[in-house]
Amino acid sequence: MRGNDEDLLMIPGPTNVAESTLRAMSRQMINHRGKEFGEILTECTENLKKVFRTKNDLFILSSSGTGAMEAAIANILEPGDKILCPTYGKFSDRFKLIVDAFGGAPVELPIEWGDAPEPGLIEEALDREDNIKAVTITQNESSTGVRVPLEDISKIVKKHDVLFIVDTISSMGGDHIPVDDLKIDMCISGAQKCFSLPPGLAFISVSEKAWEVINRTKRRAFYFSLPAYLKSYKKDPPETPYTPALTFYYALQNSLRLLLREGLDNVITRHQKAAQATRGAIQALELEFFPKREDLYSVTVTAVRIPNGVQDKELRGTMQKEYGVLISGGQDKLKGKIFRIGHMGQVTEKEILTTIYALEKSLKKQGQRIELGSGVEAAIKAFT
Amino acid sequence: MRGNDEDLLMIPGPTNVAESTLRAMSRQMINHRGKEFGEILTECTENLKKVFRTKNDLFILSSSGTGAMEAAIANILEPGDKILCPTYGKFSDRFKLIVDAFGGAPVELPIEWGDAPEPGLIEEALDREDNIKAVTITQNESSTGVRVPLEDISKIVKKHDVLFIVDTISSMGGDHIPVDDLKIDMCISGAQKCFSLPPGLAFISVSEKAWEVINRTKRRAFYFSLPAYLKSYKKDPPETPYTPALTFYYALQNSLRLLLREGLDNVITRHQKAAQATRGAIQALELEFFPKREDLYSVTVTAVRIPNGVQDKELRGTMQKEYGVLISGGQDKLKGKIFRIGHMGQVTEKEILTTIYALEKSLKKQGQRIELGSGVEAAIKAFT
Repeated sequence: MRGNDEDLLMIPGPTNVAESTLRAMSRQMINHRGKEFGEILTECTENLKKVFRTKNDLFILSSSGTGAMEAAIANILEPGDKILCPTYGKFSDRFKLIVDAFGGAPVELPIEWGDAPEPGLIEEALDREDNIKAVTITQNESSTGVRVPLEDISKIVKKHDVLFIVDTISSMGGDHIPVDDLKIDMCISGAQKCFSLPPGLAFISVSEKAWEVINRTKRRAFYFSLPAYLKSYKKDPPETPYTPALTFYYALQNSLRLLLREGLDNVITRHQKAAQATRGAIQALELEFFPKREDLYSVTVTAVRIPNGVQDKELRGTMQKEYGVLISGGQDKLKGKIFRIGHMGQVTEKEILTTIYALEKSLKKQGQRIELGSGVEAAIKAFT
Repeated sequence: MRGNDEDLLMIPGPTNVAESTLRAMSRQMINHRGKEFGEILTECTENLKKVFRTKNDLFILSSSGTGAMEAAIANILEPGDKILCPTYGKFSDRFKLIVDAFGGAPVELPIEWGDAPEPGLIEEALDREDNIKAVTITQNESSTGVRVPLEDISKIVKKHDVLFIVDTISSMGGDHIPVDDLKIDMCISGAQKCFSLPPGLAFISVSEKAWEVINRTKRRAFYFSLPAYLKSYKKDPPETPYTPALTFYYALQNSLRLLLREGLDNVITRHQKAAQATRGAIQALELEFFPKREDLYSVTVTAVRIPNGVQDKELRGTMQKEYGVLISGGQDKLKGKIFRIGHMGQVTEKEILTTIYALEKSLKKQGQRIELGSGVEAAIKAFT
């Protein structure tokens, strides 16, 4: 049964926002070119750098995560420039579409959805093709529930004179992604995932090497011009080139304080436990994971094949209507074939157990032979 | 004297947000691809069309107003395309910079700041130059306090095969700008001005004629791709191509309901009265307006020359520190030369009288010979 409160959002973003963050957004506007905003902007930027584990520049854009993906591409691209884009889901694919939209020449490496790009494949492409300007990787492909291990890819990219662009929109803050150790030149994230914020802010870090490329590129960027962001941030007080989404900065300030008070490592461990509990439950319910191999399972979203005899919409409809739990279906070619449970942001035992319980009951309602409680039991075991 | 509450924002945006709108933003996240969001998006879009007085398509972008200016240009521009850009302040100038950033050829008509483009000048340029694709006008140049009368310019533009792009970021909802009557092909506005919302949403209307151009243009747009917005809006339920800034939609829904409940014409009359009262006070205080002629005075922002012997920062500093009233200085080449009072959004007698009172006292503190109360008296007279 469900009450009449808002749904529990167990989708891969937006995620539930903490009460104190929701309340922080009730604050009146302030001058966005004044001292106080400069202080908020500085605190948020410095705290984000701690989460990114980077000493690089980092900028907060007033857009969704896609805006920061565009910023990464548009600031380094001239017509005809080649960008290596392994594609293995909706979001890695998006890089290719952006390169194309901005007149670049995407060198696509199509990989089966559910799998991740092999480092060897990337090395082969970099050796084969001349003048590749950058490699794009979606570290957490939330459309397929795949996590891409970055260590080996990083080593290969570094052997070549190319930029390493990584989308961590649905994982930064919930997974271990040390930007500087991994030598990521441009790392992108978004507010509405592990940061437990409303959608509307995006983050991008920029390395020295990326600046060198940006500075010699005739860019097609204005709203997302990174040099404009840098120039404004250097002002006293620091500011943004265009009017920032003030209310979301109040929220970001609060959310980052919560995150760092809990401790980044603890937050990541909490996400890992939530993932393990979810996976344990899925296994106990004898459902099939969508990612090809266990070492590819995402820390923030679990993608599961819809079993024979189960109707996607009915399953999710029951979970929402009768239990107030929202999970996601598949996107694009995975529509009707998988469901996805997001476990990111403000996620603890409570949310996972509720979700698994609702899933069990809803599968049962569709005639699946489910031993009620077995999923929940497995999840509890994983938590303890 | 001032209390310890937030400042009264009398700058040309962001403006003060109504209490009920602030509270609307405390709501938890919902699924941005679900039925309820579709309903919110539809209501907001339809209500915005009422404010724009248009039957054209209209889209809500998750960005500042500048993002919608970029959307207008980037969706119609191919490298080398000519766009006619009269420039007479920071924001009309921005169109030129965007055209330039996207590889177009801005045909600049530089006009003295404080003045507005003469329709004759625009006609001359359109007759002289071949293949102009669009004309850009900032209807309310908030950097100089100038309002551009659109009627005659509209007639001239319509005689030529060019698009009419109008920035009403700081005036729509506070000034009379009937988009369809004025045959505006792309009309742009932003949330944090007359709509009394936090910055973070931008609006753009798109005419049939604009679609024809967009559809045959090889665009450099992805995050701001208007065809992507159209495609998503046509879905059932309607949605946005990239994750929307949900919290601001809650706010927009409330703000538009407030606006339409008051009645658009009443809201505009309220803005006109606030402008008249402010101007009356400025005159009574024997200060000098920055715009060249009275018929150019903006309805939403009054720009005033800083009198001899008055220090810009001290004047505004006193107003903020001692009276809790925030006004703006000049931008770019007008820094230190003018101050600007924004009178838009939730603005009534209370806010205007408070501002004028604080202005009088602060001018007096700088040794100006001010007859205390004369400005307030003139403002009261204008209101009654």
